[in-house]
Amino acid sequence: MSRDPPVVVVVDAKTPGNIGTIARAMKNFGMTDLKLVNPPELDPDGEAHGFAGHAREDVLPNADEVTFEEVVANYHTVGCTAITGEDSRRHVRFPFKTPRELADSLRTVDAPTALVFGREGRGLDNEELAQLDEVCSIPASDDYPVLNLGQAATILLYELRDLTVEETQLPDVERERAEEADIERFHDYVGDFLDASGYKPVKRDKTRRLVRRLVGRAHPTDREIHTLLGVLRRATAQLDHRSELLDEYDEPDRWDK
Amino acid sequence: MSRDPPVVVVVDAKTPGNIGTIARAMKNFGMTDLKLVNPPELDPDGEAHGFAGHAREDVLPNADEVTFEEVVANYHTVGCTAITGEDSRRHVRFPFKTPRELADSLRTVDAPTALVFGREGRGLDNEELAQLDEVCSIPASDDYPVLNLGQAATILLYELRDLTVEETQLPDVERERAEEADIERFHDYVGDFLDASGYKPVKRDKTRRLVRRLVGRAHPTDREIHTLLGVLRRATAQLDHRSELLDEYDEPDRWDK
Repeated sequence: MSRDPPVVVVVDAKTPGNIGTIARAMKNFGMTDLKLVNPPELDPDGEAHGFAGHAREDVLPNADEVTFEEVVANYHTVGCTAITGEDSRRHVRFPFKTPRELADSLRTVDAPTALVFGREGRGLDNEELAQLDEVCSIPASDDYPVLNLGQAATILLYELRDLTVEETQLPDVERERAEEADIERFHDYVGDFLDASGYKPVKRDKTRRLVRRLVGRAHPTDREIHTLLGVLRRATAQLDHRSELLDEYDEPDRWDK
Repeated sequence: MSRDPPVVVVVDAKTPGNIGTIARAMKNFGMTDLKLVNPPELDPDGEAHGFAGHAREDVLPNADEVTFEEVVANYHTVGCTAITGEDSRRHVRFPFKTPRELADSLRTVDAPTALVFGREGRGLDNEELAQLDEVCSIPASDDYPVLNLGQAATILLYELRDLTVEETQLPDVERERAEEADIERFHDYVGDFLDASGYKPVKRDKTRRLVRRLVGRAHPTDREIHTLLGVLRRATAQLDHRSELLDEYDEPDRWDK
């Protein structure tokens, strides 16, 4: 993992809104250092700030204006493009990495790294890409592989999150799966419940297997399995209780008997 | 894999631009069926069309207006939210899947599936999420985990691309790695080149190993290795040639001799 998160460089963007979108994605995925080559004017009441969300408080106002040459001189540079070479005869855009491959390889590198995005529409041109160290391209539909600048940057920053985000908002869920013993207890209760319901004995084992498969796939939480245990216990007890009461009246309690 | 790609449902969006952004991401990642619950007006000259790119020609004009209840009734529904439950005591938003986990699980399912996104700012509310079958959440920075609606949808659709995109724009690169025999030939040439350069014999093997490691990590293409072979062959031949010429003049050709 690199010591610092990658910096994000946007070259010659025309639309302030895209810069705001990129700033927001940076903050969402743990990056802070935005560098702009030949940026449009960023009006504090304009679209860049409108799209930046909370990144309008830090990432966006702290953005630096730089030259392309400064970026090339000071960083390990990754150029992002929708259009790759088809094979190694077009080596300006080949070989390339996908965002996931880039994440895997940057994990092993400790170097100041810059992710470089080009202008809307045309992206980075060949002369720019030729000066960059690596090429990254997002796999998309062959029918329409050209992503909007802000959306492309969002996907790449998302894929690099393991390098940059120390703590996500999501809880650790490993421990939440119910204990096997409780799940087995649930399956025993299913058997009792079927018996108490007067379920046809010939179908009983098949139905229990079906329930086992369903619950097995769902990986129930502790909460879920205990709720289901409670539901079944209550229903089974009520079935037995009502059966006993009906026996007192010598009433047939099961319609399929 | 489901027979049809998932449909994308946007509930109560306020901003036409976000609907355009989502339409574009759908087209980029092989989805076509956009359904809108209580949408804002979509002016053909407005932001939805402006942000949709080429999706303004198909995905966006073909969007259906539907009710939330129709979606719940007809699809296996996945609700997308930045805010999950912390554990199973909050089961409206727990358990959840990450986009990658969702892609893995949908791969095994053949069912009409709807990806449901909520309004800007607040997302889907608890009453809506309670009616949906699964919850999906994008891991992001705990400092600022709330993504813009269009950016969140872009990431989820990107992660599902293996289910929906038959052919990406990217070439198959497996076959592009150079043949091992050519790479070995390159390493032999490196030895010859070092010898012809008058490289210090004591450092020769160490330097060859260094080059082997560097090239091994880079997985050179056929084109790259042949270009390097050509460079080394020419340089070695010139070194030898000039050495022979200098020998005729009884001139020391190597400064470190």
